[in-house]
Amino acid sequence: MATKYFLSEDRMPTSWYNLNSDFPAPLPPPLHPGTLQPAGPDDLAPLFPMALIMQEMTPERYIEIPEEVQDIYKLWRPTPLFRAPHWEKALDTPAKIFFKYEGVSPAGSHKPNTSVPQAYYNKQEGITKLTTETGAGQWGSALSMACQMFGMELLVYMVKISYQQKPYRRSMIHTWGAEVIPSPSDTTNAGRAFLANDPDSTGSLGMAISEAVEVAATNEDTHYSLGSVLNHVMHHQTVIGQEAMEQCADAGVYPDIVIGCAGGGSNFAGISFPFIGAKIREGKETRIIAVEPAACPSLTKGIYAYDFGDVGMLTPLLKMHTLGHDFVPAGIHAGGLRYHGMAPMVSHALQLGLIEAEAYTQNACFKAAVQFARTEGIIPAPESSHALASVVNAAEQCKQSGEAKTILFNLSGHGHFDMAAYDNYLSGNLQDYAYPAEKVAEAQARMPQVG
Amino acid sequence: MATKYFLSEDRMPTSWYNLNSDFPAPLPPPLHPGTLQPAGPDDLAPLFPMALIMQEMTPERYIEIPEEVQDIYKLWRPTPLFRAPHWEKALDTPAKIFFKYEGVSPAGSHKPNTSVPQAYYNKQEGITKLTTETGAGQWGSALSMACQMFGMELLVYMVKISYQQKPYRRSMIHTWGAEVIPSPSDTTNAGRAFLANDPDSTGSLGMAISEAVEVAATNEDTHYSLGSVLNHVMHHQTVIGQEAMEQCADAGVYPDIVIGCAGGGSNFAGISFPFIGAKIREGKETRIIAVEPAACPSLTKGIYAYDFGDVGMLTPLLKMHTLGHDFVPAGIHAGGLRYHGMAPMVSHALQLGLIEAEAYTQNACFKAAVQFARTEGIIPAPESSHALASVVNAAEQCKQSGEAKTILFNLSGHGHFDMAAYDNYLSGNLQDYAYPAEKVAEAQARMPQVG
Repeated sequence: MATKYFLSEDRMPTSWYNLNSDFPAPLPPPLHPGTLQPAGPDDLAPLFPMALIMQEMTPERYIEIPEEVQDIYKLWRPTPLFRAPHWEKALDTPAKIFFKYEGVSPAGSHKPNTSVPQAYYNKQEGITKLTTETGAGQWGSALSMACQMFGMELLVYMVKISYQQKPYRRSMIHTWGAEVIPSPSDTTNAGRAFLANDPDSTGSLGMAISEAVEVAATNEDTHYSLGSVLNHVMHHQTVIGQEAMEQCADAGVYPDIVIGCAGGGSNFAGISFPFIGAKIREGKETRIIAVEPAACPSLTKGIYAYDFGDVGMLTPLLKMHTLGHDFVPAGIHAGGLRYHGMAPMVSHALQLGLIEAEAYTQNACFKAAVQFARTEGIIPAPESSHALASVVNAAEQCKQSGEAKTILFNLSGHGHFDMAAYDNYLSGNLQDYAYPAEKVAEAQARMPQVG
Repeated sequence: MATKYFLSEDRMPTSWYNLNSDFPAPLPPPLHPGTLQPAGPDDLAPLFPMALIMQEMTPERYIEIPEEVQDIYKLWRPTPLFRAPHWEKALDTPAKIFFKYEGVSPAGSHKPNTSVPQAYYNKQEGITKLTTETGAGQWGSALSMACQMFGMELLVYMVKISYQQKPYRRSMIHTWGAEVIPSPSDTTNAGRAFLANDPDSTGSLGMAISEAVEVAATNEDTHYSLGSVLNHVMHHQTVIGQEAMEQCADAGVYPDIVIGCAGGGSNFAGISFPFIGAKIREGKETRIIAVEPAACPSLTKGIYAYDFGDVGMLTPLLKMHTLGHDFVPAGIHAGGLRYHGMAPMVSHALQLGLIEAEAYTQNACFKAAVQFARTEGIIPAPESSHALASVVNAAEQCKQSGEAKTILFNLSGHGHFDMAAYDNYLSGNLQDYAYPAEKVAEAQARMPQVG
């Protein structure tokens, strides 16, 4: 069975890694949505604590992890690294497959790696309440856990269709003491506008962001928290890759290929950014692959442009791969990957040729996930299954070429909340969606006109 | 936050501990259901492999864990031991609270500790197919994972009400490749008899056992597997307590009180038997508490007698605390604790005064579980929440007496499959059931007449 590489707590990273310090060209800055000029710290202050804004902009390579955050990390970190010999055998590949497993956190995913520091820094600056949005609920549950630990209130706008169809992560958010409102709602101007336009709207992540941002922007004691996309979120997640690097060394390997699924980009950044840094600084020849759903392919089919993070056009403009801020993705089971944009740092890495991107349809992903569950035991989250589909592809290439490459992927969460999706797959009822090509031109036409 | 005590793999137990070797009086043997004479190995051979039958009867203190089983254990073992300082603070108690966390296994509970060796020994003896029963699905999923790992078929009889109302563990069983039939079914004589008696029967664990046992008894290549109650299952689970003992030593403590929830008795045995052994051999003064639901209180309200393990009266008779083999417990959310009997070894330990038993209603249990989730992060399974209710009680006693006792409990699984139960609790809709006192006399009257 799988071979496990634990890391003792005294080898846990004490700093987050900032890939911005190593990029060969600077990351395009966010723009103020009104002036279209680069947004400064003051522009972001209504939404975020200054400590996180500084992390967003700092050129420093390492950001110290506060001791209080490290203490909470130790509830589940360091997470294990595994080799997957039985899956290798089932794939009949000479490749060595390793995976980092983030499903051991109390929320069952990598999301608490950033929810905990975000709650911490807000608490430090006297903020008593946060707002956020959530799709299927991974982020909302992770942030509710963190807020509860720091004695803060949390209001979660949950995409209405998920609120209705996926009640269990909603229950989890309640168990951790936060309030949940289905979005679009009549509690915000943005929500009322969406409802006026379509009273039966089942919502989207982009709409829920507008609502959460509005509440934070209009309440003194309230800030907003985002579970992906922004630079500081990418930094926080690098504990994954830093640990994996140590564990790979313990296992006597260095990955030839590093793979992560990408929705907003945070778990992909987590596993890959430290390896991209090594690629830039030390000239390592590592292939780094971001994997997205064919139904929501911002990296592989989107345009690279300044766009809003939300439907209501309230957020700063970010330079990123986007399908258009009003794009509503098909209802695939990987709810965490249904976002129109991509983290600017991930987009920038793609533009610079430091990473590659692939897209897979969901049946291919679930096929890989079921084979993995049947050989190595762990049932992957539908989001993570996209990374597995890419591993299958890379393993097949190794089989063709006879090369025994070392593949490392991030298993970002377990699928215990997503068994209905497995049911659909196993009963042959899972539909594959392709992104309609004509949408690209439409999105291009509606893109905000910058500079 | 919680302080974690990891154990390196090289300190993982290499033997299971057998409390039968240390009991001051011998365990009453199982009886053949026809002859009412002690059942010998041959009587059990149609159902179990000889290796497990020998473990059932051996007087040896330690049973070596096969290397193949240790290899699979390493997928999630050793499991972490935590101290829970934030819960201690919320409870305002001088007690030191430690817990062993079994929810990190791929199935999310302690059950794979025995499903893996059971599949292994059956495979070793040429068996290609197993049958079993499951209530809410913890055991069925754990065994399906193990069978899949050894390339064996599995047929699971799932209590019909759970099959209908709790589809997600059923999906998990399917994902791991096993077949699931709602029980009672028309696929067995026992099932047809139950249905003839009550066509609308929603089933019970006792009925599902009858069906699974019948299939195994009447098919040469098929054996039966039980997830609790039997001696070998108790032995297998002692990896929990053995690891905890090492980890407590690392933490510089020895528990004054050891607490586990008890349905059939396996996770309770797992955490407590090594400590009971130390109590007997070394005179340690440890309180050991088994905690059961007030709705299904075999240890606190049942009678200690020879009874059947199933409704169909097909199993050997076991000397145990029982509510009567035809008792159908109220529909509480802790599905894994809804069994009429108790493991003979646990019952024997209670008779000998080595352990105590307590019962709690489910609102008290969920109250403790929510407080725990909000302070230490992890959301407990409803079964495990019974242990937490007892910890709250013990911590309160420490507060009254001012004693800083060390409490160790087993957090046998996470509650990610049971969020609907948390919803019910949080919305105030959870009903408490008491076991009707008159049932005891009724059960006594229907008990099989032995000796």
